[in-house]
Amino acid sequence: MTISERGQAMPVSAFRRLAPFAEAARQRGRQVYALNIGQPDIATPPELLEAVRQADIRVLAYSAGAGTDSYRQKLAGYYQRAGIEVSSEQIMVTTAGSEAILFALLTCLNPGDELIVSEPFYGTYTAFAIAAGVRVVPVTARIEDGFALSPLADFERVITPRTKAILVCNPSNPTGHVYSRAELEALLGLCRRHGLYLLSDEAYREYCYDGATATSALSLAGADEHVVVMDTISKRYSACGARVGALVTRNEAVFNTAFRFAQMRISPPGLGMLLGEAAAELPTSYFDENRAEYQARRDLTVRRLRAMPGVECPVPGGAFYVMARLPVDDAGRFGEWLLTDFSYHNATLYLSPAAGFYATPGLGRQEVRLAYVLNLTDLDAALTCLEMALEAYPGRIGKLVRDEVVSREVASLV
Amino acid sequence: MTISERGQAMPVSAFRRLAPFAEAARQRGRQVYALNIGQPDIATPPELLEAVRQADIRVLAYSAGAGTDSYRQKLAGYYQRAGIEVSSEQIMVTTAGSEAILFALLTCLNPGDELIVSEPFYGTYTAFAIAAGVRVVPVTARIEDGFALSPLADFERVITPRTKAILVCNPSNPTGHVYSRAELEALLGLCRRHGLYLLSDEAYREYCYDGATATSALSLAGADEHVVVMDTISKRYSACGARVGALVTRNEAVFNTAFRFAQMRISPPGLGMLLGEAAAELPTSYFDENRAEYQARRDLTVRRLRAMPGVECPVPGGAFYVMARLPVDDAGRFGEWLLTDFSYHNATLYLSPAAGFYATPGLGRQEVRLAYVLNLTDLDAALTCLEMALEAYPGRIGKLVRDEVVSREVASLV
Repeated sequence: MTISERGQAMPVSAFRRLAPFAEAARQRGRQVYALNIGQPDIATPPELLEAVRQADIRVLAYSAGAGTDSYRQKLAGYYQRAGIEVSSEQIMVTTAGSEAILFALLTCLNPGDELIVSEPFYGTYTAFAIAAGVRVVPVTARIEDGFALSPLADFERVITPRTKAILVCNPSNPTGHVYSRAELEALLGLCRRHGLYLLSDEAYREYCYDGATATSALSLAGADEHVVVMDTISKRYSACGARVGALVTRNEAVFNTAFRFAQMRISPPGLGMLLGEAAAELPTSYFDENRAEYQARRDLTVRRLRAMPGVECPVPGGAFYVMARLPVDDAGRFGEWLLTDFSYHNATLYLSPAAGFYATPGLGRQEVRLAYVLNLTDLDAALTCLEMALEAYPGRIGKLVRDEVVSREVASLV
Repeated sequence: MTISERGQAMPVSAFRRLAPFAEAARQRGRQVYALNIGQPDIATPPELLEAVRQADIRVLAYSAGAGTDSYRQKLAGYYQRAGIEVSSEQIMVTTAGSEAILFALLTCLNPGDELIVSEPFYGTYTAFAIAAGVRVVPVTARIEDGFALSPLADFERVITPRTKAILVCNPSNPTGHVYSRAELEALLGLCRRHGLYLLSDEAYREYCYDGATATSALSLAGADEHVVVMDTISKRYSACGARVGALVTRNEAVFNTAFRFAQMRISPPGLGMLLGEAAAELPTSYFDENRAEYQARRDLTVRRLRAMPGVECPVPGGAFYVMARLPVDDAGRFGEWLLTDFSYHNATLYLSPAAGFYATPGLGRQEVRLAYVLNLTDLDAALTCLEMALEAYPGRIGKLVRDEVVSREVASLV
């Protein structure tokens, strides 16, 4: 008996590679500041949990495959308030954003088809692509450009007869880049010219800073047949454990096909949908408060990072991540060393080496992603740890000219 | 832009084809007894819902990918009490049985590989197989034999180099057949001789009647490398909406690979796991009470069906389904007619035509599955409807000699 080829190809989650080292550090009594994963420390709004408590449930039964009607109707109201005109029949409730991604890939692409993704990207897309038998084709955005959309010609160049879709995450995990309307229109134009789907992950829609707002791909002219939005309540309401998301599209054939995939698992999580219903009724002031908190954290993170010698980072406009280039030989090695060898006042930090966000081998070797999901005090302490660590790290080096070229030289130095 | 081939191949759920007719009948004011789906009317144990209410949650966060440690440990206790020796490290919590099935297929089979399933089987397996690119190869069990395991030679005959696994549901949905230890040993022996996985869906483990007990495939000698159990709390505790299940195996490579698929969706539903934890602590008397109730329903259903002229059904030993052969031209047409044309005291019933449980075209045309998920009073009234309907149905005919042969003749008669 053998393990399937896709099973063998499935990577160990980039988010989890350092997990055993973090666990061991905690066991040794270290305080480990976890900036590695987008798990907000902000409380789930108590009224959401209260809605679950108050629900009068005799039988916790299956719901309809696309979610309960009442939740879908409330979601339609939420999307309308967010400037996205969709009816409840265009919204399918999913088991978190994860399932929306999986259903979108299963519906829009055949095995062997190609999915273009701007890298660095949420590493888990690769896992979904492997599960669906789809090939990820990266187009590289550069830290020097603030991870703005690469020139369209870069996308055009990698389009083949097997290309079926472009996937964008806006605001971006991991870069925090907020795509401008012009960038999105350019991407959609490309999709329209080449007959491609535009799959848009909009999990962080509300978290844009400095007065900016995120443009939904569904709000673009000509979006109807092309755009599939993949969404989740996880980040929006600090409810990652609820496992409730949505696939939203005006393309009826895509919706109906995704619905057949949804029917195979009968229904999304019932208790989570109750929580989601209450969430859809929160006033927009909820986002204002959290946005202010995240913006203060972003400002602190960027200010502290830029004050560290040799560290570079663009100012991310949204989400709750910062990508930074560090003066280290290898961010993966540095991340591990932080957990195994380093401490400052008995504390250290746990960050995400950026290699897991790139599909092109060798890219991102000096980059890390920091999730500012801790309160300002802890975040400041974590950044002090980072500053001290960069001074102490034996693999400290200057800026690499080109990651992919230098990697071999670095390997020979160590 | 096109819909993927697998999306086009994905069937409309057999459970849902008649749903619009049932909905229309309800809208016309008909009482529709729903015997079509395994959604029990029995209350979810109140202590399970109370456990969710009492939980002190500040942030509803991601859990570990394999589920919370506390739940996995309690599940290990549950399995031990059920006679299945596994440690918590061999139990992966999944988003219901559905996800356990999907992960098992993705892990054990390559696209194009073959999965042997005894038919009639839970129709949704076909949908998972299409999603995973796997080919279902049926081996037919016969109503005349009480849907007992077909001779091993029938399995042996369809094994090819692409065969990777045999899937069994025990007790069976839809037939209610409880596989004997000897039947399971024979199947496992076949798997061992041919290097195949034995995937065992044991969702109905506790619901066996007349003093019988279900044998878990994991309790067989030699199971370790071959057996993957796919499980769920849905039926066991009337908690279909919780979306909590488990993949259980002692095969470390299978577990570790399935875990990588699990990591892509980060974690199973958090609120559902709280409910599952409370469920794992229920005393076995909980099952005794429900088993007595289901047995009384089964007895009523079988007695009433056998008293109807021309109706045949074996006595199902477990689960909460009865497969019956009706004196009708086509069970699908009859099922639709029940909802569109028939009523008795303004009531009718909604049943599952069995064709959706067979992969072989033409089989099961006179058969239906009835789920005895209503209380005895409603169930009796539903069966009275069925009796009256069979007398009134214009397509009433005798027993077909061979479904597949006669189907053309029937078509020419109508």
